[in-house]
Amino acid sequence: MKIIQQDFSVRFTYPVIFTEHLFSIENQSFIQLFPNSTTKAARVFFVIDSEVTAAHPTLVSAIAKYMDHFPQLEQIHVPLIVPGGEQCKNEPKWVDKILEMTSLHGIDRHSYITGIGGGALLDMVGFAAAISHRGIRHIRIPTTVLSQNDSGVGVKNSVNSFNKKNYLGTFAPPYAVINDSDFLLTLHERDWRAGISEAIKVALIKDLAFFERIEQDAEALASRQMPPMQTLIWRCAEMHIQHIAGGDPFESGSSRPLDFGHWAAHKLEQLTKYEIRHGEAVAIGIALDSTYSMLKGMISEADLNRILTVFAKLGFDIFHEDLLKKGENGTLSVINGLHEFREHLGGELTIMLLEKLGKGKEVHEMDTDLIEKSLQLLQKQHYSQQMA
Amino acid sequence: MKIIQQDFSVRFTYPVIFTEHLFSIENQSFIQLFPNSTTKAARVFFVIDSEVTAAHPTLVSAIAKYMDHFPQLEQIHVPLIVPGGEQCKNEPKWVDKILEMTSLHGIDRHSYITGIGGGALLDMVGFAAAISHRGIRHIRIPTTVLSQNDSGVGVKNSVNSFNKKNYLGTFAPPYAVINDSDFLLTLHERDWRAGISEAIKVALIKDLAFFERIEQDAEALASRQMPPMQTLIWRCAEMHIQHIAGGDPFESGSSRPLDFGHWAAHKLEQLTKYEIRHGEAVAIGIALDSTYSMLKGMISEADLNRILTVFAKLGFDIFHEDLLKKGENGTLSVINGLHEFREHLGGELTIMLLEKLGKGKEVHEMDTDLIEKSLQLLQKQHYSQQMA
Repeated sequence: MKIIQQDFSVRFTYPVIFTEHLFSIENQSFIQLFPNSTTKAARVFFVIDSEVTAAHPTLVSAIAKYMDHFPQLEQIHVPLIVPGGEQCKNEPKWVDKILEMTSLHGIDRHSYITGIGGGALLDMVGFAAAISHRGIRHIRIPTTVLSQNDSGVGVKNSVNSFNKKNYLGTFAPPYAVINDSDFLLTLHERDWRAGISEAIKVALIKDLAFFERIEQDAEALASRQMPPMQTLIWRCAEMHIQHIAGGDPFESGSSRPLDFGHWAAHKLEQLTKYEIRHGEAVAIGIALDSTYSMLKGMISEADLNRILTVFAKLGFDIFHEDLLKKGENGTLSVINGLHEFREHLGGELTIMLLEKLGKGKEVHEMDTDLIEKSLQLLQKQHYSQQMA
Repeated sequence: MKIIQQDFSVRFTYPVIFTEHLFSIENQSFIQLFPNSTTKAARVFFVIDSEVTAAHPTLVSAIAKYMDHFPQLEQIHVPLIVPGGEQCKNEPKWVDKILEMTSLHGIDRHSYITGIGGGALLDMVGFAAAISHRGIRHIRIPTTVLSQNDSGVGVKNSVNSFNKKNYLGTFAPPYAVINDSDFLLTLHERDWRAGISEAIKVALIKDLAFFERIEQDAEALASRQMPPMQTLIWRCAEMHIQHIAGGDPFESGSSRPLDFGHWAAHKLEQLTKYEIRHGEAVAIGIALDSTYSMLKGMISEADLNRILTVFAKLGFDIFHEDLLKKGENGTLSVINGLHEFREHLGGELTIMLLEKLGKGKEVHEMDTDLIEKSLQLLQKQHYSQQMA
């Protein structure tokens, strides 16, 4: 037996740009991404979320005008409009449609596929781009709070298969990400709010000052003021980007340090048949793991109250009745969810809890009695909030 | 406009192991790849080329015995046997079948998918593994000369789609590669020979000493002696591995320095409807570009003769009549192939030629008259060899 050891590193870089009025002719955010070639235009294909085109009826024509204006740019075909939301990840036809377009229009590794939409649409478009020609350059323009501050700035893509969320996918850093806050103006109330929970999550486990900023801004955020939302998205995206770069970008290990509040959230989304938003489920998952941290003596009751108060001010529910559903084995489904999460991690459980506000602590087991007590406490708190 | 610049590197390492009698109980090559855990067995799923199981009828039972012998190993289901060759990359059902197995048997990111077969089968299995769960660990056991010294030790996977070769795929370094020379014993004559052309290719553009070694060993290689073949595969694989690590592993640029002889080879494969092997086409492509290099005054006639003599000793044809086919535009199809290659590279042509034996030189244009002259010279040489 003889061995040659292969060993190399690949550097990945991409800008995450924050702007407004992206497709105004005077905005340089998009055009500056491309080589300024006089001989060869950059060919760009757009895939857009139908909820975005519905809320922004002039978007498609603004893009056409922008692409026409610059001789360095060439739009490939007209944009493909895809119904956004989880459904576009469930139906293989959308990935197939994008692949077909790449073949029909010669969209190659020197071309660009730009996705504009929520996290689900970007996941799906990113997957199609990643597997065509071993990776077509992919530009992401996230249009929701959640995708602008979290998934959209990261390196993952996916679609659902075999009734399993994100079953197929790759790690594929985008060519660039552009966050245009104009898209947030037309979000539904629930989507505006839901994305904030990922910011609260990173603040609680990593950055007390950021958490205190969210506390101060809670009313302004609840009344949909843009400047505090821009600040929140910037800082949350920045922490997410730093986390990816500083850790294990393609998740070769099994630690998932950003999954605070997520084990229960994943199960709750499934239990409610995805009627609640991911961000809404994460808020409840954070409330649960924070309550558990308090009962474990890791944080004080006062700390817990600060957390629950922020959620209340922002209009989040901190409890959902489906958390009390029982599985076929007679156990609470959410406890079964804990075991499923353990399997998902490959056998060893790692759960992030709080050791103080702004600092998470990983543990490797959870006390199921204490989880049940946490649920009861949260339920009580929830109904007293409802009555107030 | 504000920007956060993401910037990180990901390190990839994997061993390429050279051995014999891989699945004998006393062989450590396979078992040593896995953690020596007493609590949790490594779960491994095998996908095997049907040509390999036909030539090695005891392989499946040897694997079962090996997996049974070690408590740290657990075989998932029985091996999936897939018809090898290009056809398994054309039919989506094989990727789908592997994905279905991952779902049915809980094959996750902590499990392993091992492919055993020729380059086409490994490309297909690697693609299925790369897109499940954002990448299941993938072990490659190449069974042909070509896959052991070239594609199998690299980082690419693919399937064909829209009638285009390698249309879908990713860059995904394997978990490990194991080259067992026993598999070479049963290769067809043509496959034994065809894989040698990639070794001649890297030798000619990078390593005169290696080329001279192949010259010395040519008769021994032609008579299927194993030691010179093991030496050839080792050195060729080593150079391929070094090239990947030293250059642009995921091909973000457009240079393809290892594509010596390949522009004409790709076209010839297509013109012959894949009746000639890739390696056979590469030999002809090398003969053509070497002849062109001589006519351009870059190498001497004596140098060219050394190259053509090695091919002749090994039993390669250095010409194929389909090179004289004309396209719909009245031009030689192979010249059209040059333009297609330019498009494939994204507009700028880069072709590797020879400035001396053991040293390549990239050029950015080719003289079509000189290509035609090269073809005539090769044709003449070919028929004089045939007569001899």
